[in-house]
Amino acid sequence: MKQVGTHLVVDAWEAPQDLLNDPEGIRRALIDAIVAGEATLIDLCVHQFSPHGVTATATLAESHIAIHTWPEHGYFAADLFFCGSGKPQQAMELLQRALQAKQIRFREISRGFDQTPDLNTIIGESYYQTVA
Amino acid sequence: MKQVGTHLVVDAWEAPQDLLNDPEGIRRALIDAIVAGEATLIDLCVHQFSPHGVTATATLAESHIAIHTWPEHGYFAADLFFCGSGKPQQAMELLQRALQAKQIRFREISRGFDQTPDLNTIIGESYYQTVA
Repeated sequence: MKQVGTHLVVDAWEAPQDLLNDPEGIRRALIDAIVAGEATLIDLCVHQFSPHGVTATATLAESHIAIHTWPEHGYFAADLFFCGSGKPQQAMELLQRALQAKQIRFREISRGFDQTPDLNTIIGESYYQTVA
Repeated sequence: MKQVGTHLVVDAWEAPQDLLNDPEGIRRALIDAIVAGEATLIDLCVHQFSPHGVTATATLAESHIAIHTWPEHGYFAADLFFCGSGKPQQAMELLQRALQAKQIRFREISRGFDQTPDLNTIIGESYYQTVA
């Protein structure tokens, strides 16, 4: 199995609306998450939607992080694709803490270039966590 | 089930090495894919790695498309997250044709803000396709 990386697909709930609608806060959270994940930033796009919602994509040397927020539902969707080195789960946990999501669920998908059945399948479990 | 969008997680193989190592071609393929998917581009980052490999992330009004190539293995990994309108599968098929990948596998993940078991699970099947 020629795994090239790990892809975390994340849903998070019960986050404060103001944090999810603050593009500068989300920019800082992403940069902190990249540091926590020991990754290298190439480019960062943060976009504020009207009337609410923020989308941000970070292009990394390791691959990417993307986050999309629905402040009106206290919800954000994120995915973190890390190839080679780096710690995607630490980056994810930083995002959760920064955006104060009380509940999070993620799936871990192994990505790679062999056409084996165990690639591009969910290998990790679903988790619910509550942060203080 | 409050679905907000569809997330396609794509692996593709047997693509010509030169196409996977051409950042301008990948930029054009992404723009064409966004048109095919009836999506709206906000920002596009295309990065060439040394000695080979390209990463591109397109921030969309609908969410994002990201692609990462391993030319030496004829392989690319992509994911397409489309919220609201738009046709992610058409965008994916355009990418496959543009990069001439003979084999493709994708998983369709339903994303949304209800904490129901049927969100953030793979709802689509795995497909292998051969293009002429």
